[in-house]
Amino acid sequence: MSEFRKDPLSDHWVIIAPNRAERPEQFEIGSSKRTPGRCPFCRGHEEDTPEQTAAYDASGKMIEQGAWQIRVIPNKYPAVENVRQSRPARNDFFETRHGVGIHEVIIECPDHVTAFSQLNDQQAALVFRAYRDRMAHWRGDPRLAYAQIFKNSGASAGASLEHAHSQLIATPVVPTQLETELHRSAEYFQLHRRCVFCEMVDRELKEESRLITQTEDFVAFCPFASQFPYEMWVLPRQHSSHFEFAEDGKLAGLAAVVRDLVGRVEYLLNEPGFNYLIHTSPFGSTHLRHYHWHVEIFPRVSRTAGFEWGAGDYINIVTPEQAAAMLRSAQMP
Amino acid sequence: MSEFRKDPLSDHWVIIAPNRAERPEQFEIGSSKRTPGRCPFCRGHEEDTPEQTAAYDASGKMIEQGAWQIRVIPNKYPAVENVRQSRPARNDFFETRHGVGIHEVIIECPDHVTAFSQLNDQQAALVFRAYRDRMAHWRGDPRLAYAQIFKNSGASAGASLEHAHSQLIATPVVPTQLETELHRSAEYFQLHRRCVFCEMVDRELKEESRLITQTEDFVAFCPFASQFPYEMWVLPRQHSSHFEFAEDGKLAGLAAVVRDLVGRVEYLLNEPGFNYLIHTSPFGSTHLRHYHWHVEIFPRVSRTAGFEWGAGDYINIVTPEQAAAMLRSAQMP
Repeated sequence: MSEFRKDPLSDHWVIIAPNRAERPEQFEIGSSKRTPGRCPFCRGHEEDTPEQTAAYDASGKMIEQGAWQIRVIPNKYPAVENVRQSRPARNDFFETRHGVGIHEVIIECPDHVTAFSQLNDQQAALVFRAYRDRMAHWRGDPRLAYAQIFKNSGASAGASLEHAHSQLIATPVVPTQLETELHRSAEYFQLHRRCVFCEMVDRELKEESRLITQTEDFVAFCPFASQFPYEMWVLPRQHSSHFEFAEDGKLAGLAAVVRDLVGRVEYLLNEPGFNYLIHTSPFGSTHLRHYHWHVEIFPRVSRTAGFEWGAGDYINIVTPEQAAAMLRSAQMP
Repeated sequence: MSEFRKDPLSDHWVIIAPNRAERPEQFEIGSSKRTPGRCPFCRGHEEDTPEQTAAYDASGKMIEQGAWQIRVIPNKYPAVENVRQSRPARNDFFETRHGVGIHEVIIECPDHVTAFSQLNDQQAALVFRAYRDRMAHWRGDPRLAYAQIFKNSGASAGASLEHAHSQLIATPVVPTQLETELHRSAEYFQLHRRCVFCEMVDRELKEESRLITQTEDFVAFCPFASQFPYEMWVLPRQHSSHFEFAEDGKLAGLAAVVRDLVGRVEYLLNEPGFNYLIHTSPFGSTHLRHYHWHVEIFPRVSRTAGFEWGAGDYINIVTPEQAAAMLRSAQMP
């Protein structure tokens, strides 16, 4: 049973997914100590997981069997249900919809590597190509409006297994945060005839104080209104609205930048847990002039407290300018 | 230095407050084990804190000196600055305002009690009366638009000191979450000529499945679209828009309900950290027909992960109906 519920007091959806309560926990609560056990994500343990929905070899070619480098499986404890026939919605004061959707796990490597930063550039590139391919795949499904790609690394970031992996959750509703960004960026475009993200890239490159690194194709910085200490964003320099249309070469470059940033954070902050996620345009569009896909990275070094839950606004005790200066100078040994 | 920054892509404010980075941490990171040390909040250690802004005796009378039961002090590491003359705002692409405001700590008892549930009913009532008095006090300050009362209990909930205490942060901006609730409840009122919270109270009392407890004046339930497992709301049954106008008798009843709920959570879930907070109307109004103050309580038993940060929506693995059934049957020994 999985259900979307709409809060009558906000525009937020909640996914009520009680079957996820049964998922095993490899980390002890409140600690990052791992309880030992057979890893279901390692090559050779394929029978411990649901049957794969895709697998890729070292060249990025999709394979049916053989030595996979990336393996995509349905999440064994999904937040949403991949069913064709949905239960009817309830649209009275308490609004619900059947929790239809896709919840996949992208296993990033065959060996028991636990840190994304420990993958080599080629493997990291394959991970980002797999993100794109799965998103392109689900784009064609008429039940779905959006796919969220995200990574939880470490117990403090919500990971329950340590083997390097990411997740995809595709839903019939566009997430609240995306709706807000789409709405605000459309307003900005209306007013200025320009993509607000392109404007942001230009300003960050010019101001330099929040810049961390740049390549020919990407720019990485600590955003001006960072919600969290050491929050980092990576944007393509050229306007691009849909992540799933990105080319292999671009994705290899992106993977290298993200791996570099994660490595800097691990070095600087003693390997904290972190999340990263991709914000992109909804499936029901092919090109948007006002929206610009990007990657957001959140090291988990602070605790969200009562003020934040109540206000919906954040207190950040590290200025983005300080954070960027430290991240600029951080180099992995 | 403290600064409000507005995210150009959402309506969210971030408070950048680097001086809070210096605050001492009584809990070890990632654990709830306390490092010993002299508690600055215990009676007799008043010189360890900034000078009090208010203190109350056992009858709730404000006192200048003598045996306090509740003591209110400026936060030594404030998120906002209590200054008369603010720095000019910056209103270009990157919008900032000087982080003017009030950040107070409400010390809930003179002895070293670490759990709100361990206060007696009379002391708990004094705590809620202090909340009201401080809110009523700051309401008169023309710099301020809203005061957020909240409690962080336990390291996992963001507390840095264990002695029972709450906080007040008053700001010149109305927090995003409140703006949303005000906007949505005004829309609902426009359409239905009724307070959406009053409607919710009626429905929860009628449906019963999410109800936890009720008194003559208050009703407590797990909200229909609970973002977190065991999330609990307490609402006055009678329409009331401003917490700071609540009478002593009502506040004593509210304190007893909140203490009861926190006790149930501690018993049921093995004393997790928790936050609670009060949502009420902004200072610039005296009576609103569409808004209804309430208390929200969040036990910290789950970890927010990449999906939530990216989507702005939540996955909750305990249905509010399950949670309410368990909380109904939970009784402190």
